[in-house]
Formats: sequence, C-alpha cells, structure tokens
Amino acid sequence: MVTEYMKGQTPAQMPASGECAVDVPGKEGRLKLRYLGIDTYQHHVVFIRRDCPICQAQGFTVQSRVQVRLGAKQIIATVNAVHSPMLEGGEASLSESAWDALDAKPGDEVDLTLAPQPGSLSHLRSKAYGHRLDDAAMRDIVTDIAAGRYSDLHLASFVTACAGDRLDAGETTALTRAMIAVGERIDWHAGKVMDKHCVGGLPGNRTTPIVVAIVAAHGLIIPKTSSRAITSPAGTADTMETLAPVVLDRATMRRVVEKEGGCVVWGGAAGLSPADDLLVRVERPLELDSEGQMIASILSKKAAAGATHVAIDIPVGPTAKMRSAAAAEFLRDRLIEVGHKVGLAVHVLFTDGIQPVGRGIGPALEAWDVLSVLRGESGAPVDLRARALALAAMILEMSQSVPAGMGMQQAELLLENGNAWLKFQAICAAQGGMRVPPRARHTRPITAARAGKVVAVNNRLLSRAARLAGAPQAPSAGIEYLSPLGRFVEKDEPLFILHAESAGVLQYALDYILGQPDIVTVADET
Amino acid sequence: MVTEYMKGQTPAQMPASGECAVDVPGKEGRLKLRYLGIDTYQHHVVFIRRDCPICQAQGFTVQSRVQVRLGAKQIIATVNAVHSPMLEGGEASLSESAWDALDAKPGDEVDLTLAPQPGSLSHLRSKAYGHRLDDAAMRDIVTDIAAGRYSDLHLASFVTACAGDRLDAGETTALTRAMIAVGERIDWHAGKVMDKHCVGGLPGNRTTPIVVAIVAAHGLIIPKTSSRAITSPAGTADTMETLAPVVLDRATMRRVVEKEGGCVVWGGAAGLSPADDLLVRVERPLELDSEGQMIASILSKKAAAGATHVAIDIPVGPTAKMRSAAAAEFLRDRLIEVGHKVGLAVHVLFTDGIQPVGRGIGPALEAWDVLSVLRGESGAPVDLRARALALAAMILEMSQSVPAGMGMQQAELLLENGNAWLKFQAICAAQGGMRVPPRARHTRPITAARAGKVVAVNNRLLSRAARLAGAPQAPSAGIEYLSPLGRFVEKDEPLFILHAESAGVLQYALDYILGQPDIVTVADET
Repeated sequence: MVTEYMKGQTPAQMPASGECAVDVPGKEGRLKLRYLGIDTYQHHVVFIRRDCPICQAQGFTVQSRVQVRLGAKQIIATVNAVHSPMLEGGEASLSESAWDALDAKPGDEVDLTLAPQPGSLSHLRSKAYGHRLDDAAMRDIVTDIAAGRYSDLHLASFVTACAGDRLDAGETTALTRAMIAVGERIDWHAGKVMDKHCVGGLPGNRTTPIVVAIVAAHGLIIPKTSSRAITSPAGTADTMETLAPVVLDRATMRRVVEKEGGCVVWGGAAGLSPADDLLVRVERPLELDSEGQMIASILSKKAAAGATHVAIDIPVGPTAKMRSAAAAEFLRDRLIEVGHKVGLAVHVLFTDGIQPVGRGIGPALEAWDVLSVLRGESGAPVDLRARALALAAMILEMSQSVPAGMGMQQAELLLENGNAWLKFQAICAAQGGMRVPPRARHTRPITAARAGKVVAVNNRLLSRAARLAGAPQAPSAGIEYLSPLGRFVEKDEPLFILHAESAGVLQYALDYILGQPDIVTVADET
Repeated sequence: MVTEYMKGQTPAQMPASGECAVDVPGKEGRLKLRYLGIDTYQHHVVFIRRDCPICQAQGFTVQSRVQVRLGAKQIIATVNAVHSPMLEGGEASLSESAWDALDAKPGDEVDLTLAPQPGSLSHLRSKAYGHRLDDAAMRDIVTDIAAGRYSDLHLASFVTACAGDRLDAGETTALTRAMIAVGERIDWHAGKVMDKHCVGGLPGNRTTPIVVAIVAAHGLIIPKTSSRAITSPAGTADTMETLAPVVLDRATMRRVVEKEGGCVVWGGAAGLSPADDLLVRVERPLELDSEGQMIASILSKKAAAGATHVAIDIPVGPTAKMRSAAAAEFLRDRLIEVGHKVGLAVHVLFTDGIQPVGRGIGPALEAWDVLSVLRGESGAPVDLRARALALAAMILEMSQSVPAGMGMQQAELLLENGNAWLKFQAICAAQGGMRVPPRARHTRPITAARAGKVVAVNNRLLSRAARLAGAPQAPSAGIEYLSPLGRFVEKDEPLFILHAESAGVLQYALDYILGQPDIVTVADET
C-alpha cells in the first residue's frame, strides 16, 4: 500500500473553511495556484477542492464552466473537483494548457466566477435542428469559439452540425468571414501575394516545400502557413518540422519572408485563424469532415496570411477525399465563389488522386522525398516532382510574371539549375536552421501474398495504417510505399514497409493491417 | 511560493524508467494504482506519468483512449499525462468514476492497452453526413456506447447527429430496440404492468408520485422508473429523492413493487437503459433535444422496466416542449407506432402546457406541492391535482379494471378517501424511509413592475432561472410561482420567489432575471 491517504477518507489536516479568501458571499473567490502538472491536452481544466467554500458559495460543481482571471488575462475552464489534500484550503490548480494560456506561475492568485452560458448556444442548437445560420449568428458562434467559451462538447456538436454538406454557400461565406474577423490579418505591403493549398486525402502528396522553393526562387512572395494533420498521417507542418522549425511567431515569419520571399510555417503558431485551430482539435478524434468548414478553414487562413492569389490542388480518386469529378467540381466552384466574396483570386488544379504520391507516408518519410526532388537525385519520385512543377507553373502564371503557357518551363528551370534547392536551404536556415529528418527504429515489410500486378490501392486504409504506426505524433513513423499501380510483384516481395518508433506500436499497426487484406490488391496480369 | 516542485522542472527523485513493469515491448503494461481523488464527473480518466515507458512503448499520448483492466473488469478511459512526481514510476491513478467502475483500491495493479477505435464510428460519421442508419448500424452504435467505448466527443457528436427530427420512424424503432437490447429487462410475472411518462417542458408538472399512489392504491402494478433532469430544473427522480431514497438496485425495487404494487425510483440505478444514461450526460450541457432519441429513451426504459401499457402526458403550449398541436400529434403518432413495434400499448393525453403546474419549480418545492395534493390540504394546487387525476383515470381505464368512463370517479375516490396518501407513505417507507423535503436558506421575491393582469408566462425562461438558482443539483433551490395567468397583481407584489442554497447563486440567478423582463408579462386588464 503506497498511498498516504485513502479514497473517501477526509484528511485530518483539512483546514477550516475560513481559510479560503471569500470576502462576502457572491463576490468572486480568490485562490492561490499550486502546480500539479496535469496535462489534459488543450482542454483547460481548473482543479478545486470539493470542500472549498468558494465552490459552494458560487455554486461550482464538477463540470461547471468557470472564468479564471489572473491580472488582465482570463480563460474559461472546466472544474474538476479534488477529494484529497493534494490541494490545501484556499488553493487551486490548472491543467498545463491553462497555465500557459494565463501565463501563470505557482503562487499566483486567480479569481474564479461562474462563466455564463455562451450566448451563441441557441444558434448552435438551431443549426443542429437543421436551420440555416445567418451572418450574425455565425459571427456570434465563431466569436464565442475563438474566445474559448465553448467546451469540447459544444465544439464537437458544432463540428457535427456542420458535417458533410450541411453548410450552404451563404453559411460557408459567413463562416469564412467570421473566422477571418476573429484573427489578425497580415499585410505584406506587396501587390500580389501567392499561396497554395492541397485538399487532403492523398497520402504522401507533399508538394508544398518544393512549390514554395520554386516560387520564391522565381522572386514572388509566398508566405505559406500550413496545418498539422487532422485525419491524415502527416500535415505539411508536420513534415516541414522534420526539416526546420515551423513554430514561428508572426514577427519571425515576417523576417523570413522579407529575407527569402517565402516560408513554410505552422499556421497555428501565427494565430491566423484561432477559431479554426480550436475546431481542428475536436475534428481530429471525431474524424469528421465538413465541406463548409474545410472551405472556411482554407480560405480564412489564406486571407489572414495576407494572400491575394491562391492555387488549390484537388486530388480526385476513388479513395481520395474527393471521390468523383462531380464532387470535385462542386468544391472548386464553391471555393472560387466564397474566395471571390472574401477578396481572394482562387485557381484550382485537379490532380490524379488514385494512389499515394512519392514513397513516404508520414512526416519524416515524406521529407526525404521532398529532399530528393529538390536535390535532383536520380531516384527522386517522378510523380511528386511532376505535381509540384504543375502547381508551381500555375502559380507563376497566376501572378502574370511569366507569359501564359510559360510557367512549366520556368518552374523546371528553377528546379534543374538548383536555384529552388538553394532557396529551400535558405528558407530553412531563416526559419531557425535546417534539420535532418529522423529515421524510425523499427521497420517491418508487408509482403505480397501472391505474384501479380498491383491493380488497386486503398489510400484510406493506407493512411489509417500509417497513423496507427504513430504518424504524425511520432515523426519518423509511417509507411514507405513501394508498389505503385501497374507494378509487377513477386510473391513475398515487399508492397510497403511499416516504420514505427516502438515495437508495441509497430505490432498494433501490423495487427490492423493483417485484418485489411484490401490495402493493396495484387491480381493476375490481364 | 508554496510548491515543492516547479512547472517544467524534472524532479530529481524521478525513478529510472526500468521500474515500470513492462516485460517486453508491445506487451501490455501493468501499473500500480495510487489515489489522487480527482473527480471528472462520469468521464473516465487515467492519469499516467508522461515519462512512463509504458506510455512510450504502447504509443499512449494525452487524449489517447486506453483499455484499463483490473481482474475481470475493464473500462475505457482517456489518458491525462502527469508531469510531476505526484505519481511515482510504475504508478497510475484514476478519476473517481473510474475507481468506482473498476471497483479498484489503491495498490491494485491495472493493465493498460491502447483501445481500438469503436467499430461503429463509421456509422456515426455516416449519420453526421446525413445518411440513414439501418438496424445493424444503430445496434453497433448503441452497443459501443453502452460498453463505454465512446468518448464524450463521440457522444456529443451522436447526440447532435440525431438532434431535432433527424431520426425517422425506422431509425427511431431501431434505436429503441437497440437500447432495450443492451440493458436488462424486468419480468414482473404479471399480466398487465402499467407505466406513465410525461414529455417534459412544463415546469412543476410533477404528477407522477400522485398517479403512482392512486394506481397502486387501486391494486394495479406500476413500477415507475424516473429520470433526473436533463434540461429542466427537476426530474421526477430529483423530486422524489427529497421524499424517499430513489437509488434502488433491481432486487430492492422488486421487493418494493411486490409489497406495495408501485414505486418511484431513479431509472439510472436500475441500469434499465445504460446507453441512454450515457447520452443524457452529454445532452445536459448541450441542451439539445432529439425527438427520435426522446422516443427511444422513453420507450426503451418502459420496455426494460417490464411495462405492457404506457400512458404518456404531452403538455402542449407556446413555451412548452411541444409548441403546436401538429408537433404534439406527430409525436403521439410516432410514440404509438414505435411502441407497437416494440410491444407496448401506448396511450397519449394532451394537456395544457401554457403555464407552470402547481407552485413549486425545483425538486423540493415540487415535492411540497405533491404532499399537499396527496394530503388533501385545502390550499393544494388544483391544477396539479386535476392533471394527476386525469392521468390516473386514463391508466385505470387502459387496464380495463374499471369500466370505460369510470376511471375519474375511481381515481377521485382513492385520493379523497386517503388510500392514495397511505399508499404513498407505504411506498416511501418501502423504498427506505420517508423524508422531509429541504427548505432553501436564501429566498428573494421578484415583484411586479406595475399593476395589471398576468397575461403571459415564459416557461423556458422560468425553467432557466430555476436552474441558475441551483436546481436540480441543489434540491431546495428553484422558484415558487405565484402568478398564474389571469391573476391581477398590484405593483411590487411578488410574481414569484427565487430559492437558492447560497447567496452567490441567488445573485447569479437574479442577474439573469433582471435581463429578462418577459418571464412574466403583466398588462392592463382588457
């Protein structure tokens, strides 16, 4: 028995209730912070003793949402009650995210008051019941989200209420405008500011670092903010982080772009769309997509990053995010329409979404592919190179800095003469220093059960397997994909190689893969 | 500075990582439980040291969902990481609900493994995207929910995806059947078993204890399980708990009913619809209604409680849950249809839902109204008495134990001759002993700003004010309503009296009321 105190027991050293600094009933209560070191991810929690008179006077119960104020800063947190003397009378503690958000130190005194219900919850309910949200309602919701007034349950409910195609064009525009409004917008004091985005769903499609290098080498401004993975094994920010620091504040990002013309940084650190960052946190475990939210997320970040022209890559394929040409065309039209309403010139490139791009799936594995293309290595993945060139060419032409039809020639030149590679190294250096991507300690090949031709690959199952192997949290984890469509494989030849940072996780992913024989389909050559 | 260790500091006494009992990488890890006394409400949390090798070997991160096994019991919990020496190497801790669910004691050793994603999440996503769920998909979802495999985010998403009228008749029947299937069903070995339910939304409408007393006094079997409040200031279980114990296990409930013919107990304790109990927990903070879920919740609990005949009271009024006759008729037809499919004879009574019933709004205040009707006191609320009689009469006739048209006469007789009151006292005694409902320590009258006639009352705002005053968590809290429609009031005469257990909460509710002048509308007599 190792515990000093038992469950349910009232500790003898419990102080008299008068020790809590409640002046008069109904006034806000002040508690001294003690550090307990509990990490609840980004969900703010305040820990209070169950017998604290402040809880009782103010009517706090477990799961109450309370305002926690420290000097000029304040957050809304969920109450967890503590039934043991970890906290003394008059003390409270915070989850790690709450310490950070308040910039609090142990011994600081915080004021607690019951947080009112977010005013926009009636709009959220209305949307859940299937009604349209007007501009004002959407602004109220996004304002409450950005201010941290929504609990995780509210966020999950909003994401679900907007899932799939539940937001129409007007609501999507309203959401985009609201998301731009609650964040800050960068002004580059330049005529044209280029940007790009890929609508996910295609493993390994890591063109961004290559495109930025080419476009910046050409002399254009392309301040690229990228996201971390939501449902995929790697976001561009995850991949780029294995090559250089990506968590740059706005001032540092500005210095990088002013010096090199381009950057590839994590958008969350720049605080460009604070509401979107909070939504992403609950979208991740729910693995839910919302077309309207996706459009608002993309365009609000581009507008906030100061872009004027945006190239959007939409991979189309049976297991990509966009499964049909009709769905992709609908998305394109909506992106262009909403972009126009918020002042962005949007151009769309449909790309083949039938199979993974390059070889790597996972942050570091994709970074190695990027490096081999930029360095012009002989074994560099030709598909990744071709896609990056097509996007770079489109951006060069959008900017009207090359004649129409001449974008590809110029993009190829910049890649082949090494200028893009030099520019990429300069960008990495400016972001804080270039890094060597890590290699996983544990690998295991998944082999063909029979000889034949690779006739199908399920990108979704492949992505899921890479995530189960640890990507993107474990940057070296993921999948090295060796069997593009049409390749002939022998029995027992590796189709792909699983990479993981621990044997336990490797086994976990393997167990999943063994139950999914259709990840890669090998059939007789016909 | 009161802390023994600082945020971010690595404690010197941190043990070597080998102390965690990991046998081989990839095997499940075993950790010894230490009590920390952290109450996260019913959300299971497992606390693990961030540097624990088990976390690393198994790939646990903060927010991971893990299976925690102790002997034959197991739960799924969310990981919170601890960055401080509150836990030693090889130790873990649990939230209060998780200790209870595992029946764990400090020093017990638990096994942890990564929990697979619930298999039914693809169905949940499909529903969120607007597709219908078939019987098998609904069964998969409800099975996962009942097994505790859904996180709060998943539950919030499911509730939202089914909100309003998003479940059709077939889906509602499937949900009802699935909810019955995952719980246990009581067999009373009797021909006819009566039950009643009120579709909420009308403050103070606490007929159940009176109806059960009359019906049981008549000699019928009426094993009533009630719920706690979701979005209202009191559920019947909350009110009844101020009069007698309601948390009865199944065996005790059976003894009460076999002895007295009836009971009024909390359905959650009987475990009659375990999936519903979990859904209610997230519906509460979201304040979301779902017609399909409401029907499934009502009927699954009635079927599980062994009922054969169910009388359902549907109050209709502009600020009741059912605002129009059309909505009420739609609900009635759906209840009868789904009831028929799961083997329940459902009868519906529409009642006037225009204003509160009785005087009390809140657990104890409503209990005082119930007592005054049962005791036949001269000042007993006539509206509550009349409604209880109408429902009791309907149930007596449904059972065919009185001739058609004779139910009301028999119900009045049993109330007036004191048999119902004697039966109620006997039921309370059998449930564990009759109690005196508490009185609030703090009250404040809300007065009329002008003289005139009461022409409107907003039940929703009134309910919200009662909740802000602390109901139902604080049983004595709520509202004593003094101004029924049509009454003439003088300026400064009390319209209602706010009751609260603390001055802070009283003020909080008052602040809300001051911002809502339309709770009770007083106008010139016309």
